[in-house]
Amino acid sequence: MDYSQIEQNQLINLLKEERKVFKRLQKADMSVDMTRGRPEATQLDIAMPMLSNAGNYDYRADGIDNRNYGGLQGIKPARELFAELFDCKTDEVIVADGSSLDLMYTVMQFAMQFGVLESTPWNQLKKVKFICLTPGYDRHFAICEHFGIEMIGVRLREDGPDMDIIENLVRDDESIKGIWCVPKYSNPSGVTYSDRAVERLATMKTAAKDFRIFWDNAYLVHDLYEEGDKLKNIFDVARKAGTLDRIYAFTSTSKITFAGSGLAVFASSVDNINAITKELFFKTIGPNKINQVMHVNFLKNADNIKELMKLHAEILRPKFELFEEKMSAEFEGDPFIHWSKPKGGYFISLDVKNCAKRIVALAGEAGVKLTPAGSSFPYKLDDLDENIRIAPSVPTLEEMTHAVDVIISAVKQARMERVLLKIHNIKDID
Amino acid sequence: MDYSQIEQNQLINLLKEERKVFKRLQKADMSVDMTRGRPEATQLDIAMPMLSNAGNYDYRADGIDNRNYGGLQGIKPARELFAELFDCKTDEVIVADGSSLDLMYTVMQFAMQFGVLESTPWNQLKKVKFICLTPGYDRHFAICEHFGIEMIGVRLREDGPDMDIIENLVRDDESIKGIWCVPKYSNPSGVTYSDRAVERLATMKTAAKDFRIFWDNAYLVHDLYEEGDKLKNIFDVARKAGTLDRIYAFTSTSKITFAGSGLAVFASSVDNINAITKELFFKTIGPNKINQVMHVNFLKNADNIKELMKLHAEILRPKFELFEEKMSAEFEGDPFIHWSKPKGGYFISLDVKNCAKRIVALAGEAGVKLTPAGSSFPYKLDDLDENIRIAPSVPTLEEMTHAVDVIISAVKQARMERVLLKIHNIKDID
Repeated sequence: MDYSQIEQNQLINLLKEERKVFKRLQKADMSVDMTRGRPEATQLDIAMPMLSNAGNYDYRADGIDNRNYGGLQGIKPARELFAELFDCKTDEVIVADGSSLDLMYTVMQFAMQFGVLESTPWNQLKKVKFICLTPGYDRHFAICEHFGIEMIGVRLREDGPDMDIIENLVRDDESIKGIWCVPKYSNPSGVTYSDRAVERLATMKTAAKDFRIFWDNAYLVHDLYEEGDKLKNIFDVARKAGTLDRIYAFTSTSKITFAGSGLAVFASSVDNINAITKELFFKTIGPNKINQVMHVNFLKNADNIKELMKLHAEILRPKFELFEEKMSAEFEGDPFIHWSKPKGGYFISLDVKNCAKRIVALAGEAGVKLTPAGSSFPYKLDDLDENIRIAPSVPTLEEMTHAVDVIISAVKQARMERVLLKIHNIKDID
Repeated sequence: MDYSQIEQNQLINLLKEERKVFKRLQKADMSVDMTRGRPEATQLDIAMPMLSNAGNYDYRADGIDNRNYGGLQGIKPARELFAELFDCKTDEVIVADGSSLDLMYTVMQFAMQFGVLESTPWNQLKKVKFICLTPGYDRHFAICEHFGIEMIGVRLREDGPDMDIIENLVRDDESIKGIWCVPKYSNPSGVTYSDRAVERLATMKTAAKDFRIFWDNAYLVHDLYEEGDKLKNIFDVARKAGTLDRIYAFTSTSKITFAGSGLAVFASSVDNINAITKELFFKTIGPNKINQVMHVNFLKNADNIKELMKLHAEILRPKFELFEEKMSAEFEGDPFIHWSKPKGGYFISLDVKNCAKRIVALAGEAGVKLTPAGSSFPYKLDDLDENIRIAPSVPTLEEMTHAVDVIISAVKQARMERVLLKIHNIKDID
């Protein structure tokens, strides 16, 4: 609704009415956490057979005692499984412990301290820059900020990164060493990159020879619907273009089995795999291969993983749809309010210009915890104060109903307050 | 035996005879790996109930769903368990994934890139040095070498580090930032530090305010006998002296449950724990808490761990004793040959001056793989060409019998060859 077209007193009354609605919502005294993309308990139950069968798996298959040290790159069946999932080759895969965040941090640290392949260690350069697509994943940006890497924000469009801008940036600036990408069901916007964007990323000319695409394919099998988004295989494109060294791909089973207790996966060119393995030698004697045996036996193959992901989708989908239904009923066609309608992943992105901080604050007053406004931007700076990341996975449907009512009311209030301030110069109506 | 007192021709004959013995040993065509301190399969069997019971453990105790993200410092019951084992406080402990090597590398990397507490990042200093006790653990030295940290070798004596030398070094040289210690059943010598050495380490004056003792207590419960060595609690000493920030203690369950698939533990002052936790935030969303729940349920408490370690000792002890018996029968009282008689840990250290490389090479020719000579020294340089690390855990008793026969013959040949060369100027007798 265009509140600027409403007469001042009427708008004040509207806001007062909305505040009454909000008070009633507050009285529900519910506490809903929508800050992080955590699986909910019933999703985690899906993988419990992996634990109850742990005693029956063969930890000494193929003459290798996986209960003992060794195997820096992970066990072969795990590497094969994720090669199948990534649609790349087995020797292009390392399977490691825990979270992909750990792997991303680790390869970044290797690059900073020791360089990539034969390059100068990034620590020794005057300036290192990364392209950060916005809105994006706060943990990626946190790694950059922590290592002192300058972040260049580039808008993520509906079909992926704004490639014209990116190609221009990386063509001439040798200090731009990489880009963070969540290419499928991007965090938080849900965008999946177009084929053309994938192709351009893999083939663009970069001034930096040691340029790396941090391809965080966190949601590669995390479809909400039978017909999920299709992401072009970047390995195929890069292999053909001779740029496979540029690809640092990641994923994990955090949202397939257990969050943080799964397997983390790295895929890249064989040269990179060998170089990273050499680095890993100094860091570890090998990953948790017991956990890898458990996962391989439980997950079996890509088809079976897809079946498991359908069970996850059945739990997640109603929450996404509830948000969509309630928001559409309220704001359909409203040019001031945009939200994403992802076909997978863990997030919904809500855009309300100049109102994000206020909406998050208001929601908090009604017990609905949202990720702090700005989190999805480098240095936590959302110039438009627009974007809110909604993580609908943790709340129950009942909690979600409440939470979306709260968000709707917060959106309305924030927008009315903004119009009152900017057009009528009224700071507060109380 | 003092071969230098034997007449030349007689010595040549002796060597020829020994070579015949060796040929027979070679004909056994056995392959024995004594390179690394790996548990053997029957030891790993001890922890199999942890896997068969994995389905029965409560992963959601105390209202925390440990199947989900979070818990940067590890689950509380795991921190409590290792605080009991270390005899320190729960909030002085972080329980992480996998191997302690990974943790040691990680805190070293934090120090290099970001500094410790408020100190200058070590990467930004002209020179960083570490004291490396020799013989010592090759993986410690490899971390230093990889990060470009200059290693100062200091002899490890029978009662621990040579503290006079160390105190002198660290008092004036601010670039010396730390020391690697394996204080109990040291790798490879089996030495346990005296109370006085522990006290002096914890209380010595260091020019570097950010000096750190990397206290790798890998074998803290790894006694071979009921009456194991007793190590003074460095936390008590340091707490009293106000130097707790100096202590970076580590251990793991790699040789209690599964090698590389266990838990890794870090213990230090609360200030260090908080600082490391802040660093960990950028690196991970939390450790594998499923594995922590499994371990806590299986290991239960320090007393139970000690019972489990008795089962390990029953398997390991005969191998250590076999080595001792055969070596004593052959070399008892020989002033040219020394070997350690550890009451725990995973290694025996064999010293034969000027002969280590040759002995390792000869053993290899008879299928007995030993750690390369020099491995236990910084830059792999054993000036005396003296030290050989024997890892008796992997071979069976039958393999051990063969391996020690091979080693004995190799020792004899190497010493005779040396005397022939140095005294009689004879390069080869064939």
